[in-house]
Amino acid sequence: MKTQRGNFFEDFQTGQLLKHPTPRTVTDGDAALYIALTGDRRPMHCAATFAAAHGFRRETVHDLLTFHIVFGKSVGQISLNAVANLGYADVRFIRPVFAGDTLRAESKVLGKKEVSSGKAGVVWVSTRGLNQRDEEVLRYIRWVMVEKRDPATPTGAADVVETPGAVAASELAVPLGFGGMDPPPPGGGWVIPHASDTALATGGQYFWDDYTIGERIDHVDGMTIDETDHTSATRLYQNSAKVHFNAHQMASSRFGKRLMYGGHVISVAWALAFNGLENVLGILAWNGGSHVAPTFAGDTLYAVSEIVDKQPLAGRDDVGALRIKLTATKNGPTDKVLELDLWVMTRRA
Amino acid sequence: MKTQRGNFFEDFQTGQLLKHPTPRTVTDGDAALYIALTGDRRPMHCAATFAAAHGFRRETVHDLLTFHIVFGKSVGQISLNAVANLGYADVRFIRPVFAGDTLRAESKVLGKKEVSSGKAGVVWVSTRGLNQRDEEVLRYIRWVMVEKRDPATPTGAADVVETPGAVAASELAVPLGFGGMDPPPPGGGWVIPHASDTALATGGQYFWDDYTIGERIDHVDGMTIDETDHTSATRLYQNSAKVHFNAHQMASSRFGKRLMYGGHVISVAWALAFNGLENVLGILAWNGGSHVAPTFAGDTLYAVSEIVDKQPLAGRDDVGALRIKLTATKNGPTDKVLELDLWVMTRRA
Amino acid sequence: MKTQRGNFFEDFQTGQLLKHPTPRTVTDGDAALYIALTGDRRPMHCAATFAAAHGFRRETVHDLLTFHIVFGKSVGQISLNAVANLGYADVRFIRPVFAGDTLRAESKVLGKKEVSSGKAGVVWVSTRGLNQRDEEVLRYIRWVMVEKRDPATPTGAADVVETPGAVAASELAVPLGFGGMDPPPPGGGWVIPHASDTALATGGQYFWDDYTIGERIDHVDGMTIDETDHTSATRLYQNSAKVHFNAHQMASSRFGKRLMYGGHVISVAWALAFNGLENVLGILAWNGGSHVAPTFAGDTLYAVSEIVDKQPLAGRDDVGALRIKLTATKNGPTDKVLELDLWVMTRRA
Repeated sequence: MKTQRGNFFEDFQTGQLLKHPTPRTVTDGDAALYIALTGDRRPMHCAATFAAAHGFRRETVHDLLTFHIVFGKSVGQISLNAVANLGYADVRFIRPVFAGDTLRAESKVLGKKEVSSGKAGVVWVSTRGLNQRDEEVLRYIRWVMVEKRDPATPTGAADVVETPGAVAASELAVPLGFGGMDPPPPGGGWVIPHASDTALATGGQYFWDDYTIGERIDHVDGMTIDETDHTSATRLYQNSAKVHFNAHQMASSRFGKRLMYGGHVISVAWALAFNGLENVLGILAWNGGSHVAPTFAGDTLYAVSEIVDKQPLAGRDDVGALRIKLTATKNGPTDKVLELDLWVMTRRA
Repeated sequence: MKTQRGNFFEDFQTGQLLKHPTPRTVTDGDAALYIALTGDRRPMHCAATFAAAHGFRRETVHDLLTFHIVFGKSVGQISLNAVANLGYADVRFIRPVFAGDTLRAESKVLGKKEVSSGKAGVVWVSTRGLNQRDEEVLRYIRWVMVEKRDPATPTGAADVVETPGAVAASELAVPLGFGGMDPPPPGGGWVIPHASDTALATGGQYFWDDYTIGERIDHVDGMTIDETDHTSATRLYQNSAKVHFNAHQMASSRFGKRLMYGGHVISVAWALAFNGLENVLGILAWNGGSHVAPTFAGDTLYAVSEIVDKQPLAGRDDVGALRIKLTATKNGPTDKVLELDLWVMTRRA
Repeated sequence: MKTQRGNFFEDFQTGQLLKHPTPRTVTDGDAALYIALTGDRRPMHCAATFAAAHGFRRETVHDLLTFHIVFGKSVGQISLNAVANLGYADVRFIRPVFAGDTLRAESKVLGKKEVSSGKAGVVWVSTRGLNQRDEEVLRYIRWVMVEKRDPATPTGAADVVETPGAVAASELAVPLGFGGMDPPPPGGGWVIPHASDTALATGGQYFWDDYTIGERIDHVDGMTIDETDHTSATRLYQNSAKVHFNAHQMASSRFGKRLMYGGHVISVAWALAFNGLENVLGILAWNGGSHVAPTFAGDTLYAVSEIVDKQPLAGRDDVGALRIKLTATKNGPTDKVLELDLWVMTRRA
């Protein structure tokens, strides 16, 4: 049998390194599609002038587009036989990606533990996204519940992995290039535009200094997702998970229809969160995240952010870090589908 | 409350200048999506060889793609609380846009008038699209009916704006670059290809000289628009109008469902109009336009053009201007959804 | 009447050359859309690093994207009034296409034969795709049944064309540039990566040597196609066939709804066939192909390949040719919609 059917719980070994096919060059076409599929408006990713004013050579690829491409590559070897995508931790956005860069991905198995019923098991992996210079652009821990090939035979696997609860504020770093650090501007000191100029371009009136811990921002707008929206996004990321694409097969699943890729929910929620968080200039890290309930075509997504922490960034008076709990709901304010805990870099006044 | 909810009638002041976020670099990705979403076939916008033969350094960004991006940016401050998009006038396509250019938009409030019921008011704005060199690429007048924040309190606003009925033929200018004017070709005089070569590439048999005033062209073909078609287009333009995206909210509107962005109707009608107007090489101006009735996913659009005027263009024997009344209907020839009165530049024999 | 309604059977003359409008520059945007619409993962078309390692200056445009663009251009003059698309033969993929290349198409009428009822006739054409240097990139024979303008008047046309049953293995050529042949690498001999490195990037464990004649590969995965999926793809190719776009008109056809462009079925089937044929590095030729039954939005496609021949490629020990019969079915394994007989270039161990 020459086709790949994905790894089962028994196939994973703690310490194993899996190199994921296939490499992918990110282009302006991907960036345009990302906007068309999510409605994202953050100028760092769609305006060369804005990105250049803030130290980059051109628009940076959207942090979440990079995430989805790296994640998509990992599916074939990690989660093709996943029963559930349990969570994310310690997600670090390390280096900017530009159109023309080629991404590849690899995962290391951190641990595995059979569930008490013996029918499946949890696998923890650390996945890295690398560019064509083998520089790490993204790193995250993910754990999934994976089917067993042979549910009747116990494996005894019990390597539970303790995942960090949050990325410490002291570990957060401004992305390379932001503020003109890489390469250094000729003649030295670079200054990003005055806060009022940043704000003129983003349209946001509020800066890091204006957000208070405990504050809740209802992002107001809603976005309905149709079938081609989520399937096109998921195909763009070359994610091969069957549950998103095969309506014929999913008709006999407990859902009765295709499931939306959870990453699309994250992207849409984050695009909605622009309204009220306009001066967020990039995502630094996710502390954790989980897909609380499934989402389907026809659902309308809403987003709410709660500011759960705020910290300065070492050596910077132009940006600071906000820790946000981003919640997405569907078809109204109560039906929760996503919780994401993230650190973002925000313009100071 | 940190989220933006759009301006209400009382918020506008005659003479006010609104700079719209966020800037947007147009790319090859946007151009490809424009084709995928509309089926447009005009070679000036999709064939480097054709554009170069006609004096441009490469394909020009579609006039309507530029329009939609500029328009999309204006929505957040102008029409988020619009009850109706009443009309366009004096729409000028001034400079070509190329992939890599960054567009921004700003609007000046020309006037405002409360309606007699006192519940809303009409606001007239002049919107400009500018490139990264602050050159004007597009300019238009638009007027919208906007909700009042406080319908009970009269504002007395009565600054009615008289909009021009049509752009005078004498004011029409061939776009910079067309025919090799900008920059001038080495050695001087540039000639665009012989009319028969232009026609070979466009597939059109008819030139400016062949069209007669009063002539009616039924563009024959129909195009059905599905939800993802119009929502993707509207997201691509980063247009934030709620009525196009939120099925959950629109279910309780008088329409019961999402409204299609009127600009998508314009683009599809114009794409259909290629059949019969193949040697139109660009849009010079819109004299006026209105969305006569709403369009919804599932509707099939048809287009008819009537030649209402024809004029030479000063100093040119290779192109002339046709004034066209473009009408779009849905689901057959009688149910009108769009009327657009435009001047287009057409190849002479 | 200035609109084009396509050629009828009587309009074709054996020996006639039809130059198809409009030229089209292929871009990174088209390549990204191709991935979003089909889920294709072949790294030769989406990874600059992989393509460069195998001798190309960057990612090559997907063979099928080139095919669809060339085919799309031919529709207006060849098959706008087609009753049925009967078959393909002698389809040769000759030169790689890169983003930035401008494609145009032309067809020569090889023959025509009226059917016995006299109501329609079969037209055979040889269509060529050419780049901006007038180099042939693609060539194929296609035959279609076309309506007669005047079914009552016999034409006597009886120029039947014998199409080749298969491209002889001896005529298959590795694409220019593969393995660094064009231009020759400085200092001479180029070697493509070791087979294990190719395989690491593709994720495939099997090489040319591992496939046996008669072997059948069930590609396992299924892909459901929705309306916007196939209409966006078909618009992207600027294919103007009415049957794919006009639901209003198709409601009264015998199908009752829009037909999916058969080429989209080919692309999806080929994308599904990546799983099990990962080390196929390009399509060399189609021997023949036919759309056995129509496909509609909502259908889920599956694919199966049968290895029907294998041959070495002259002078190469790094790649060999496999002849594959690719079958696509819908909504399960029995309802066949496509049969395609193709030669592909596959990595040797």
